[in-house]
Amino acid sequence: MILRDMGEATVRAALSAVLGILLIAGCDCSQRFKYEIKEFQVPLDHFSFLINATFNIRYLYNDSFVDKSNARTPIFFYTGNEGDIELFAQNTGFLWEQAERQRALVIFAEHRYYGKSLPFGSSTFNTSLPEHLAYFTVEQTLEDYAMLITFLRNERQMPVVAFGGSYGGMLAAWFRMKYPHLVTGALAASAPVLQFPGITDCDIFYRIVTSVFQNAYNENCTLNIAKSWKLFETLGASEAGKKQISDAFHLCNALKTDDDLKKFLDYVEEVYSNLAMVNYPYNSSFLAPLPAYPVRQVCYYLKELHSTDADLLHAMSSALAVYTNYTQSAKCLDISVNSNADDSGWNIQSCNQMVMPICSNGSETMFRTSSWNFKDYAEKCYKNYRLTPKPYDIILRYGGRNLEAATNIIFSNGLLDPWSGGGVLQAPNDKVFVIILPEGAHHLDLRHSDPADPPSVRDARDKEAAIIARWIQDF
Amino acid sequence: MILRDMGEATVRAALSAVLGILLIAGCDCSQRFKYEIKEFQVPLDHFSFLINATFNIRYLYNDSFVDKSNARTPIFFYTGNEGDIELFAQNTGFLWEQAERQRALVIFAEHRYYGKSLPFGSSTFNTSLPEHLAYFTVEQTLEDYAMLITFLRNERQMPVVAFGGSYGGMLAAWFRMKYPHLVTGALAASAPVLQFPGITDCDIFYRIVTSVFQNAYNENCTLNIAKSWKLFETLGASEAGKKQISDAFHLCNALKTDDDLKKFLDYVEEVYSNLAMVNYPYNSSFLAPLPAYPVRQVCYYLKELHSTDADLLHAMSSALAVYTNYTQSAKCLDISVNSNADDSGWNIQSCNQMVMPICSNGSETMFRTSSWNFKDYAEKCYKNYRLTPKPYDIILRYGGRNLEAATNIIFSNGLLDPWSGGGVLQAPNDKVFVIILPEGAHHLDLRHSDPADPPSVRDARDKEAAIIARWIQDF
Repeated sequence: MILRDMGEATVRAALSAVLGILLIAGCDCSQRFKYEIKEFQVPLDHFSFLINATFNIRYLYNDSFVDKSNARTPIFFYTGNEGDIELFAQNTGFLWEQAERQRALVIFAEHRYYGKSLPFGSSTFNTSLPEHLAYFTVEQTLEDYAMLITFLRNERQMPVVAFGGSYGGMLAAWFRMKYPHLVTGALAASAPVLQFPGITDCDIFYRIVTSVFQNAYNENCTLNIAKSWKLFETLGASEAGKKQISDAFHLCNALKTDDDLKKFLDYVEEVYSNLAMVNYPYNSSFLAPLPAYPVRQVCYYLKELHSTDADLLHAMSSALAVYTNYTQSAKCLDISVNSNADDSGWNIQSCNQMVMPICSNGSETMFRTSSWNFKDYAEKCYKNYRLTPKPYDIILRYGGRNLEAATNIIFSNGLLDPWSGGGVLQAPNDKVFVIILPEGAHHLDLRHSDPADPPSVRDARDKEAAIIARWIQDF
Repeated sequence: MILRDMGEATVRAALSAVLGILLIAGCDCSQRFKYEIKEFQVPLDHFSFLINATFNIRYLYNDSFVDKSNARTPIFFYTGNEGDIELFAQNTGFLWEQAERQRALVIFAEHRYYGKSLPFGSSTFNTSLPEHLAYFTVEQTLEDYAMLITFLRNERQMPVVAFGGSYGGMLAAWFRMKYPHLVTGALAASAPVLQFPGITDCDIFYRIVTSVFQNAYNENCTLNIAKSWKLFETLGASEAGKKQISDAFHLCNALKTDDDLKKFLDYVEEVYSNLAMVNYPYNSSFLAPLPAYPVRQVCYYLKELHSTDADLLHAMSSALAVYTNYTQSAKCLDISVNSNADDSGWNIQSCNQMVMPICSNGSETMFRTSSWNFKDYAEKCYKNYRLTPKPYDIILRYGGRNLEAATNIIFSNGLLDPWSGGGVLQAPNDKVFVIILPEGAHHLDLRHSDPADPPSVRDARDKEAAIIARWIQDF
């Protein structure tokens, strides 16, 4: 979705927009977990002495596990990321399970500019008021959380553990780095803190997606997908070919223009990425319900090397339907809707600080070749939001690969997760813990325990729980 | 001076304004050390995506010690504080001596809004443009330094050691805490990082000054000074008494009003504080030349308990002249000029973030009783600069007394320095070093070696040099 929003095949960043929303996968959204919804006033601009405006961020509060006689009650603090905070609360079961065990106060803080934490209410994203976007930064957000924790502790000695997944995991890690006096430790699950310009190859994401597909069923899967792009382009060059594609994929709106074709191809590409991320071991429901290990199912339909175009088209269509129509309830495929997500926020963050280059070398992946072109990217950002991205902001402030001074952070990464390529896979010292989940997709460890969890996820959770318990004990 | 600028006896903060300038003490300002003066462009607002303005900060550059064949050349980086950076360069001899030993690149960075690093040129402090002051913060300054270091390293692996004294020492320590990926370690000399609301008693400063005076000659010194306030007030109530004071102290402008009297008393009080800070073991020249251990000289004149008002007045006048007219070249005492310092900058920082409470309990010190009243303080700040101080900003961001996660910082403090009361005197862990100089005044250890240096200062410098050498070696 983000890829399309940016409108250029070469502009491939910020895919993690969808990640927050991916948490919906497997969610029984009828309130698995309960909480009070509260508000907390924060300065619009923490760093200025010019602007005195304030607004309220939301946070979720549950003290049902707390032992009131314990003056050193732990606080488990979820550093909210790109989405409505209630989604994260309902989909971060591990935090709840550990809170019960540690008798912790549970807090989920909503990230400014998401959910209902909008600094300018309904005009927050008004494109004619681009100045409204000026305070939408990592640093402002971390300050929001620092103030909220200071308020919650109210001068009591309470150990705080930060939790976060994906971009929320990046925030949790950075929060511990910058405010170690406020947070005893952080669990940063699937946090691609290294997915920034110059410190990670931009093609790693698509290489991992490809690898997941290669290992899912047999090697024909990626061969077919790799071959399909040329087929789509050849067919798509003619009106008849566009119709053939439209029919094969049961598109609600038949492809008419070259731009339609481009949107279709971007959509398909994103579906593959999403599939790799939510390649969970149990049935889950994202845009549409998904089976356990959905990539395997997709590749099942692509297990034969097809010799005719028609056969390949048909197989591709069946494969894609695993993601787009698993319940077979959709009458047609609407490629304009591929996410419940409100990406408006993340699109903006990609255009100020969260410049996370993604590219692809078609000879090494099942994807089309695409380069990372910052100039095009920046121009698009300016056009859309009047924002000039600062691609090195994050490295300047959070150290890039120089994490030697970091302590009390767990970086967990699933090797089936395309974002693991930008994750911390080697511990810089013995106070930073790296936990690898060979069978894990995107922050699977943060989710509630499930009978279908593979052993590596159970092990990871056990290790994480032990480390967190030690942080609390040592506080 | 700051005390008077704030215009209220109860508004007693930010005395350290004069500290930078105290470095002049003992300075042969005819360029003991040489350097190029360079400029570096920085964003006016590092944290905003609204303001794209930039300006230049100055920095001093000397690569004469550098071994060009060494790709890992150390950078010794002075985190400039409240004053023209050239003053600090000329008065931080220890950095130069160690740079020669370590073959380091020497950089002194000028703090924004000081010296010639003015974001809005000559209109920077224009009181009709208070918005010009909005970017005058610790965080913006640290970002300036982070960008400058990134530029200087130019992707080379060069260990950077931050040096700073007083407020500059606070910046050096905070810089290491927040940007450990850019700076290997920091020497924070006489850095009162704990002199903030709620974490240090506000009367500690004047208690230390009193103690310095008590131990300088004999106990009559502080008894006389304590008694003098009442005498000044009694005499000052009448016109004849004002004349008597004016004559005794050879004031250039005789006291006429109660406000004149108040200014005189504030001036005298500040002289005592300054004397304690520059109680250096060798002749030095601040506002006027000073003898070695000037407090001892002052107290020599106050060694007798005087029974008559006239005797006490006369003795006080002689004592004060140690500071105000040691060379006996002044025809009269001008209390409107008590510093070469341009305090305009520090007065502003005291009114945004650097809220450092100072008070006095008259029964426990030689000073008048004065309380710390934040409300009055804040009102004055608003009146003068349209600024509303944020007294807890610094603690929120830099941790107050919770420094457990800090590493590779040396906090050195002289016990003769009134600011040591707000210094770090106990190491939070074994990677933070606390060095106490029992015979040290304000950041004496940062100055060049001198034959008159007491053993504790030599020892401190040796320890500091060894720690810095180890940081460089371990890099």
